[in-house]
Amino acid sequence: MTDLSALLDHADSELEASLARLFELLRIPSISTDPAYKPECRRAADWLAAHLVSLGFTASVRDTPGHPMVVGHHAGEREDAPHVLFYGHYDVQPVDPIELWTRDPFDPSIADLDGARKVITGRGSSDDKGQLMTFLEACAAYKAVKGALPCRVTILFEGEEESGSPSLKPFLIANAEELKADYALVCDTGMWDSDTPAIAASLRGLVGEEFVVTAADRDLHSGMFGGAAANPIHIVADICAGLHDETGRVTLDGFYEGVEETPANIKASWDKLGRDAASFLGEVGLSLPSGEKGRSVLELTWARPTAEVNGIIGGYTGQGFKTVIPGQASAKVSFRLVGKQNPAAIRESFRAYVRSRLPADCSVEFHEHGGSPAIHLGYDSPVLQKAQSALSDEWPKPAIMVGMGGSIPIVGDFQTMLGMESLLVGFGLSDDRIHSPNEKYELKSFHKGIRSWIRILAAL
Amino acid sequence: MTDLSALLDHADSELEASLARLFELLRIPSISTDPAYKPECRRAADWLAAHLVSLGFTASVRDTPGHPMVVGHHAGEREDAPHVLFYGHYDVQPVDPIELWTRDPFDPSIADLDGARKVITGRGSSDDKGQLMTFLEACAAYKAVKGALPCRVTILFEGEEESGSPSLKPFLIANAEELKADYALVCDTGMWDSDTPAIAASLRGLVGEEFVVTAADRDLHSGMFGGAAANPIHIVADICAGLHDETGRVTLDGFYEGVEETPANIKASWDKLGRDAASFLGEVGLSLPSGEKGRSVLELTWARPTAEVNGIIGGYTGQGFKTVIPGQASAKVSFRLVGKQNPAAIRESFRAYVRSRLPADCSVEFHEHGGSPAIHLGYDSPVLQKAQSALSDEWPKPAIMVGMGGSIPIVGDFQTMLGMESLLVGFGLSDDRIHSPNEKYELKSFHKGIRSWIRILAAL
Repeated sequence: MTDLSALLDHADSELEASLARLFELLRIPSISTDPAYKPECRRAADWLAAHLVSLGFTASVRDTPGHPMVVGHHAGEREDAPHVLFYGHYDVQPVDPIELWTRDPFDPSIADLDGARKVITGRGSSDDKGQLMTFLEACAAYKAVKGALPCRVTILFEGEEESGSPSLKPFLIANAEELKADYALVCDTGMWDSDTPAIAASLRGLVGEEFVVTAADRDLHSGMFGGAAANPIHIVADICAGLHDETGRVTLDGFYEGVEETPANIKASWDKLGRDAASFLGEVGLSLPSGEKGRSVLELTWARPTAEVNGIIGGYTGQGFKTVIPGQASAKVSFRLVGKQNPAAIRESFRAYVRSRLPADCSVEFHEHGGSPAIHLGYDSPVLQKAQSALSDEWPKPAIMVGMGGSIPIVGDFQTMLGMESLLVGFGLSDDRIHSPNEKYELKSFHKGIRSWIRILAAL
Repeated sequence: MTDLSALLDHADSELEASLARLFELLRIPSISTDPAYKPECRRAADWLAAHLVSLGFTASVRDTPGHPMVVGHHAGEREDAPHVLFYGHYDVQPVDPIELWTRDPFDPSIADLDGARKVITGRGSSDDKGQLMTFLEACAAYKAVKGALPCRVTILFEGEEESGSPSLKPFLIANAEELKADYALVCDTGMWDSDTPAIAASLRGLVGEEFVVTAADRDLHSGMFGGAAANPIHIVADICAGLHDETGRVTLDGFYEGVEETPANIKASWDKLGRDAASFLGEVGLSLPSGEKGRSVLELTWARPTAEVNGIIGGYTGQGFKTVIPGQASAKVSFRLVGKQNPAAIRESFRAYVRSRLPADCSVEFHEHGGSPAIHLGYDSPVLQKAQSALSDEWPKPAIMVGMGGSIPIVGDFQTMLGMESLLVGFGLSDDRIHSPNEKYELKSFHKGIRSWIRILAAL
């Protein structure tokens, strides 16, 4: 334990320098969905590779058809310790609507929140640059104090997580031997609350689809053509409105195939967490659960599949009014999957549904935006148990096992392509505003996150 | 008739100079709905006032809370001739999507269309700058040849026609004595086809409404909140989709109050025009009539009320994908009215309908964008008859009386506020792409339009 104390003390005394390194990374606007930021994504990858080298890794930036990967390797102190692969992503979400940010999203700072909480501000501060840096700073502590890492560590950082990871599977297949480890560590998840760390034991899958409906071959005047010509906004609205029935269930054919009911004892353990609709939704200004009737908000977000329209556009959307019937309208739709739902089957069912609602003189075009099945890890896995114990030592309250509403497709890819289970530990909070204006990361999350990884690496 | 021949000859020989004047006006980007173009709207008004003075009018630019009016007066040659008010609008529609224009919308030109038709290109070439200039060029011919206009003429040009004319009614009320004439001439309508002029005997009214639905107080991650939090895109889509039933009828309470069936003989005369769904919709790449079942496309667009969504937006609409549940989504909806439908009652019914579909923890905000009832002029009015005869002398085929699908609210205002009927004559064609990219006006429309007004002024 002397070793561990020295490591933790080092993390404490090094915090200012750790923050300075994180801020360097946060200043790079590595938005992966917008082609205008392609050079910035590469700059973030270059920065990480150089940083890994400074930590004693052999590291390189690897080209892909999209944004590059960063891969690093470091031998461990002991031969008999497990070999772990740490995964994170350096790309970030777009920042629109930019006018809602109170500070430049790429000029990070330490701010006071509610007078009591110190937070790190900026796009990517939580998702995922702040999180991945907790692990690298833990490695830095081992290198400084012990001169070596306690186990063999391989690093994989990608730059396309926020845009469906199109290059990831080919890269894993092409580099399977190099990347294979005993298990993966993934730091892209959250705490239960600011005192209670969480390990994710299940994750929802995701299917992303965009569809563009074309009616007339030009924009029409609604006076001259209104009432006679097809309006693609009506068609898109009809398709979106028809995705759910009156009970909140998704109407696609075969959508619930592979969906299993959550065991009663698991539901009961979730109910004990005391997170009801009023507290869960109250944080964001709502009060009534949407979606399927008769289920708790934790079940709805952790264990039930969904269909959500994430974007819709058509016609005149500027200031004022324009009496136009547009030629095109479109929407972006995502499905969250659970259990054994098949992403490809759901994509096909959705496309068939859209086509079935399309007038014969209109056309539709589809764009695929990623797909991954849901993941279930074992509640009783030894790795999860060790991590749970290490985390419980660091934080005020014991770590709990939870479900995850979001998708981390990489976890499924690790399972299917590299035969590797994942340990999902992260230090985000639900009010981190990830994907929204004014994203932040608790300073406590960053600091105790570093200390947590030091403990977990020691425990493994 | 010698007089008339001299006037028509003058219009022919002056065509190049007439075009040069029109091009000056078309080069001013007077987009009324976008506040950025406010100075350009004033520039267009100034240009018109100066031009009227050059034609011997007393003319002035009159301030309003929005874009200014232009008013001109000219005494007539004969005291016993009627006094007419000519109305037009100098504002134009926005130009988005700008990338679909093949030429700068504010750099007008003469282009060859299909090898055979000469057209004037640019935003406003047809709606309404090209049209209003046909009348001013007719006045110019009278001034050049006869030194005077044949009757007393008052001119009223507004700059807010494309944005709901908010200043018009107060202006008419405040200046009723100055503007009152025996009847109004309005040049903002179209031909039946390129050989057949048309006089509009009825016009649909318009109600414009924008509504913004707010759910959560921020954008949410669809993984963390999807399935539990209200999605305002779903709510807006549901509202838009529910506006029509399966037979194409509008579902709002009381919507069809005041709607009368078109007399069978009128419908029969329209059927004889040979404009079926295939020809009407084929021009814009469609083939199947939308809207109410069992009615012809001419009846649907001339004599039936509609509900059309003219714009919708919510969530992430850029390139790529963002798994967001937005805090807000909105749509712009317009209703075309016929018969005695009451715009205020329909607006209220729509708002009640929207509120009835809103979850209790969400809110909605409404923005009014203009409203006007439908207009019916008399098929047997002497003024319409004289104009029909004059037009039939100018064009290859006799003029016909038609219905109008679009709204020209000014006609209703003239009727209710100044007790004045309107003569609606215009030379646009259905493929002029008004409100769309690549708007054009036939050179023939411009040239014979000038000659038509010379004949109509002589006939009155």
